[in-house]
Amino acid sequence: MIQYFKPHPWKIIEEGFEPAMNEIAESVFSIGNGMMGQRANLEETYTGKTLQGTYVGGVYYPDKTRVGWWKNGYPEYFAKVINSTYWSGLMIFIDGTEIDLNTCTILDFYRELDMENGCLYRKCTVKLQNGIEVRIESKRFYSLINKEYSALSYSLTTDSDCNIELINYLDADISNKDSNYNEKFWDGIQSESFGDELHILAKTNKLNWIVGTSAKCEIFEDGQKIHPKSDHFHSEKQCKTTYHIPTSANKTIRFVKHVITSSNFNHTDDAVLVHGKKSLQKMAASGFDAHFEMSANAWREKWKTSDVVIQGDVSAQQAVRFNIYQLNQTYCGDDPRLNIGPKGFTGEKYGGSTYWDTEAYCIPFYLVSSDSAISKQLLVYRYKQLDKAIENAAKLGFNNGAALYPMVTMNGEECHNEWEITFEEIHRNGAIAYAIYNYIEHTADTHYLFEGGFEVLLGISRFWAQRVHWSEKQKRFEMHGVTGPNEYENNVNNNWYTSYIAMWCLKYTTEMAQKMHLSNPESFAKIAKKTAFELVDETAQWSHIQQNMYFPYDKEYNVFVQHDGFMEKSLLPVAKLAEEHRPLNQKWSWDRILRSVYIKQADVLQGLYFFEDDFDEDTHLRNFEFYEQFTVHESSLSPCVHSILAAKIGNFDKAYEMYVRTARLDLDNYNNDTEDGLHITSMAGSYLSIVQGFGGLRIKNQELSIRPVCPPQWEGYQFNILLLNQPIRVSVEKSKTTIENLGDKSIQIQVNGVHYTVKSGEEVIVNQ
Amino acid sequence: MIQYFKPHPWKIIEEGFEPAMNEIAESVFSIGNGMMGQRANLEETYTGKTLQGTYVGGVYYPDKTRVGWWKNGYPEYFAKVINSTYWSGLMIFIDGTEIDLNTCTILDFYRELDMENGCLYRKCTVKLQNGIEVRIESKRFYSLINKEYSALSYSLTTDSDCNIELINYLDADISNKDSNYNEKFWDGIQSESFGDELHILAKTNKLNWIVGTSAKCEIFEDGQKIHPKSDHFHSEKQCKTTYHIPTSANKTIRFVKHVITSSNFNHTDDAVLVHGKKSLQKMAASGFDAHFEMSANAWREKWKTSDVVIQGDVSAQQAVRFNIYQLNQTYCGDDPRLNIGPKGFTGEKYGGSTYWDTEAYCIPFYLVSSDSAISKQLLVYRYKQLDKAIENAAKLGFNNGAALYPMVTMNGEECHNEWEITFEEIHRNGAIAYAIYNYIEHTADTHYLFEGGFEVLLGISRFWAQRVHWSEKQKRFEMHGVTGPNEYENNVNNNWYTSYIAMWCLKYTTEMAQKMHLSNPESFAKIAKKTAFELVDETAQWSHIQQNMYFPYDKEYNVFVQHDGFMEKSLLPVAKLAEEHRPLNQKWSWDRILRSVYIKQADVLQGLYFFEDDFDEDTHLRNFEFYEQFTVHESSLSPCVHSILAAKIGNFDKAYEMYVRTARLDLDNYNNDTEDGLHITSMAGSYLSIVQGFGGLRIKNQELSIRPVCPPQWEGYQFNILLLNQPIRVSVEKSKTTIENLGDKSIQIQVNGVHYTVKSGEEVIVNQ
Repeated sequence: MIQYFKPHPWKIIEEGFEPAMNEIAESVFSIGNGMMGQRANLEETYTGKTLQGTYVGGVYYPDKTRVGWWKNGYPEYFAKVINSTYWSGLMIFIDGTEIDLNTCTILDFYRELDMENGCLYRKCTVKLQNGIEVRIESKRFYSLINKEYSALSYSLTTDSDCNIELINYLDADISNKDSNYNEKFWDGIQSESFGDELHILAKTNKLNWIVGTSAKCEIFEDGQKIHPKSDHFHSEKQCKTTYHIPTSANKTIRFVKHVITSSNFNHTDDAVLVHGKKSLQKMAASGFDAHFEMSANAWREKWKTSDVVIQGDVSAQQAVRFNIYQLNQTYCGDDPRLNIGPKGFTGEKYGGSTYWDTEAYCIPFYLVSSDSAISKQLLVYRYKQLDKAIENAAKLGFNNGAALYPMVTMNGEECHNEWEITFEEIHRNGAIAYAIYNYIEHTADTHYLFEGGFEVLLGISRFWAQRVHWSEKQKRFEMHGVTGPNEYENNVNNNWYTSYIAMWCLKYTTEMAQKMHLSNPESFAKIAKKTAFELVDETAQWSHIQQNMYFPYDKEYNVFVQHDGFMEKSLLPVAKLAEEHRPLNQKWSWDRILRSVYIKQADVLQGLYFFEDDFDEDTHLRNFEFYEQFTVHESSLSPCVHSILAAKIGNFDKAYEMYVRTARLDLDNYNNDTEDGLHITSMAGSYLSIVQGFGGLRIKNQELSIRPVCPPQWEGYQFNILLLNQPIRVSVEKSKTTIENLGDKSIQIQVNGVHYTVKSGEEVIVNQ
Repeated sequence: MIQYFKPHPWKIIEEGFEPAMNEIAESVFSIGNGMMGQRANLEETYTGKTLQGTYVGGVYYPDKTRVGWWKNGYPEYFAKVINSTYWSGLMIFIDGTEIDLNTCTILDFYRELDMENGCLYRKCTVKLQNGIEVRIESKRFYSLINKEYSALSYSLTTDSDCNIELINYLDADISNKDSNYNEKFWDGIQSESFGDELHILAKTNKLNWIVGTSAKCEIFEDGQKIHPKSDHFHSEKQCKTTYHIPTSANKTIRFVKHVITSSNFNHTDDAVLVHGKKSLQKMAASGFDAHFEMSANAWREKWKTSDVVIQGDVSAQQAVRFNIYQLNQTYCGDDPRLNIGPKGFTGEKYGGSTYWDTEAYCIPFYLVSSDSAISKQLLVYRYKQLDKAIENAAKLGFNNGAALYPMVTMNGEECHNEWEITFEEIHRNGAIAYAIYNYIEHTADTHYLFEGGFEVLLGISRFWAQRVHWSEKQKRFEMHGVTGPNEYENNVNNNWYTSYIAMWCLKYTTEMAQKMHLSNPESFAKIAKKTAFELVDETAQWSHIQQNMYFPYDKEYNVFVQHDGFMEKSLLPVAKLAEEHRPLNQKWSWDRILRSVYIKQADVLQGLYFFEDDFDEDTHLRNFEFYEQFTVHESSLSPCVHSILAAKIGNFDKAYEMYVRTARLDLDNYNNDTEDGLHITSMAGSYLSIVQGFGGLRIKNQELSIRPVCPPQWEGYQFNILLLNQPIRVSVEKSKTTIENLGDKSIQIQVNGVHYTVKSGEEVIVNQ
């Protein structure tokens, strides 16, 4: 693994341009604001390898499914977030020769992602084929204040007198690499180029999503605004203005582009462009720098509650901030119809759809690092899709309001087409219930249960109650034909994790129903009526199932058995497997992977992580040691759970090893796929590895407890969190831990099992 | 189920034209000669729904795979038999109005497939839009003598004086319905139209298969040859001749077309058309009727050893002859590079590739109904592909010459792309070994083992020896991650059938090795050297595996367990499942099917069928009764095995029910898919249901035994077989069975366990 990007505590830095690394850099340097985002495509024309990507949250496309052998029940369409109008491109000709980093000589090149302030900055000097040297400096950002605004500042300085032809354009004639049938998804509606403005309105040819993009530009020569001669052009899906700018040696021509991207996700169809034009005028009235400063301030505010500081390891520091930065620019809780795609706004892969990653990994991050309203939006997202989840379950033969949330979705409908995943990886349903529990533990917002949370729990529990079956042979309930989080086993019986979380759902839903019934019988009665819920009868049946459910257990090893038949495999640890066989997913055929003992991603351990209080320390230890030896971590979601559990059982070397594996996954391109986009959802895992792993942070019943340890590789670390909207800072050093209460109320905290009260503005120091 | 085709002992008859039935009729009336074949497309233009299909054995296309989610190890291409130059088409204009059954009025319509003589015959009268009535009579066949020759005789009689414009053409510009990317597969090379001849040479745009088609025509008016004025036309992929024929009311214009189809499957590239032209001249020198008579004679010869006569049930009679006819026109053993596609020459589905159907169902049919050389060719087919099977196993991680034959193949390479089938349905390997055993039991041709048979057995056994693994936990060998014949269970552990046939392979290969070593040590030593086979060591290892192999067994029901976990399912018989749920493959999602107890196709029962002598009658009875209740027979290959086993255990009602289900599958379009083509391979099953089921025929160690029963629905039945090239006729009546020895040597036969000797030309009568 070569560390291509330069270490820096707050920045990702690229020095020198490597064409082979361009698509990776485009992913890593992505910017966004939770509503929109973009890959770091070079502004000027680049004829080398590039993956153009500009994404607008909520705008997706139902691409016709492509599958070899159709299975009954497959969805017809795969909904995917799609590449949208490209706003940041320019074409620049210097005395007739175009700037193209693929063909000119690059004299110097520097690019940075400034995570503290949320912007992409680049400077470089190139020598064109005609001998002219040009210095380029560019900066662009998506505003964290006005979520429809983005802007670019682009400067050119030449070493001789010359004529610059600068073509400013908007392009809706873009393609999607991930299109199943190589179709273009966009139709042009309207396109204009006049004065300093460009406008384009495009519509997806299915679902009628409308995106309007409006740009206004300003041009300066050595800081003085100029008005060069210009030509206008527009076609159905493109519009452009060509500026003819005669300039002299060493003068700097600065081009500023203010852009508004609006869509019928937030506006009526007719209002999209009208609104965009109006908003553009308002925004362009202030300068680039003013908007940038406001956005940067908002970024710095975000860091106050989400930053993790690592002392003595700049590479780890850079990595964890990169992960936090990407998570914060992917999702800000702006809208309950948005969620977190596995690649966020950094690529097309996995269609930008919602997976269980959100509940299992991302919500725990947002719960401690952000206002709880952000996590709540993610819960509401699922509530809004409950009807579709009930429909989905009905299609599979379930009834009485049973809900099965899709494995992959955009609008609530299942859009994945591989039966062992789509149909069988039903454990996702459990994670969705678990997120509600987690949210209430952090926030005490039991009112959310009345607002929809309980209906979600009920639908999920009804599903589980029907999905198990009574085995007359064994006189117990079993659950067959499932795939657990470990996708290297398919269609297994009695997957311990799935059965465990299913039974937990029944138990938790019962408890919540009883509490709601006691605390607010009238409101509860309304919900019960709406859902035809029979509190006594249904919970009695659930209780019967829980008491008679089968959980496979091995008495020899004293471990939970991942699923029936696992212990009968050839139990050869990963360590004994010759290096040439790995990664398995590249070296082995699928059936060899399936029948091997090797685990892609934590499965039993995922259950221990979620439900740690149900098991004693020895159980953790035995299961961790047993399963860790077979785990190949070929999912980006795996190492963090192992890291947290390893820390819990005191195996800090393993915890650190696993942390390192997850933290720089994209920065160092571990999985050799960063060019497709970043692994956004797994980034939450590396944050949790520090905060929950080394920090030992837990929040149960709104009480904070920590059990901090400082890895020997670091001098110390610090994390800032928000609990019940109180900012708290925990600083861990080798010899002591300091807890600062930055809020205005007293807080209760447990450190290594000892209770402390920390008053507002005060701190407590605990020696190790 | 409506019986659309009229019953007749030797013919399939259609009276009246039903456009909605056209594609089904096209399948049912298909004709061929083992080297080529064709769907029964109407000769004249038909603008209604039709599936054009003309197929040339051995000519296939590697169509780029289409799959949703790629799994490591998937093949890039799916090889498929493709639609080829269309030779039997005509365009006919009567006074300028084209004959098209989709637009004219059909006054009468009669079509028949004459199975006794192997030809397709049609007569019909139509009234054109211009008021002219035309009588059409057509007959076409593929010669069973010259396998490159096919011919058409087509007559027109009008009710008034008129001008006929008859366009005779060859068309290589055809498409494949089954093309994954809607590509056309053929390029034109050469195209000619002159005199009474048409020639076209076309090449597949991958693999360079070349097919030449040459036609020579003759035209007669009331029996007198005429030479009407003609125009010629040819383009890259089409050639045609337009004949202008003035005619008078009630005169008959007869058009005869002699066709030679040759390919570089049998000729060098350069020789294809040269040979075709030469052969055409020779063949056209004799008349249509002479060629037809010779071919019909050959058909009648075939019937002598393969016919089954059923008395008292013309529908059953028609059905069984239809099955025998289709099998005999699909495969005649002409070439060891040919095999039997599931749809033969009657459609594109399943790509015309080779499946385990050949060994499990078809070879047992050919072994008793044809010269043993025909079955041997099918064995040699696999031997020729042994290298590819070894390569295939190597790709999956096996070594030391282990061979895994593909699930679906054209040239020996795997071309299926669904892991649970492609990779996991490994039981096919066992069937390939079983076919060798079966062949030797029938023929005593142990010499075939030295010619290649043993190498195949060895490769297969080496595969099984590596495919099992030692379970330290259970102290036994197990086999995980397989799919049995019942494809409604995927990726299961310890599938009883697969494990059983695997162990049988080890045992049989060992026995054969020891016999060969004793009988011909020198030749055997050569094979052992070539294959690096260590007789003592390898067979010792195999013996160790056999002795320690796990076969799941249920002590409560006293049955073999289909696979681990089967007995823990909800064991609800099919009979208790509401009708609305069936067929499951249309009504249920895939995961519901998978976790249910329902069986698509005999699985444990397939093993009892293959290895019946290993088990006592009671074991047959218990397992049959247990598994039959869960079997939905949603594979066309299922009912025959149940029928044969039911007959064996004396459940003749069930045997008859299952027989009926298989015999008229296509004639009555049971599965609602006959329009795609016929289920050729499962046709062998309905033959076997009578001969092995009701007749109780077995051939072990070249000795014939029968245990005949006459179903109450029939008066009697008769089957003609060939054993060691001796023709034998068995006639079963309710009260007695007659065995006639039609050969020139004495035969030994067991009837109901009693031994008889039947001298040449004599018969034995056994009373029931």
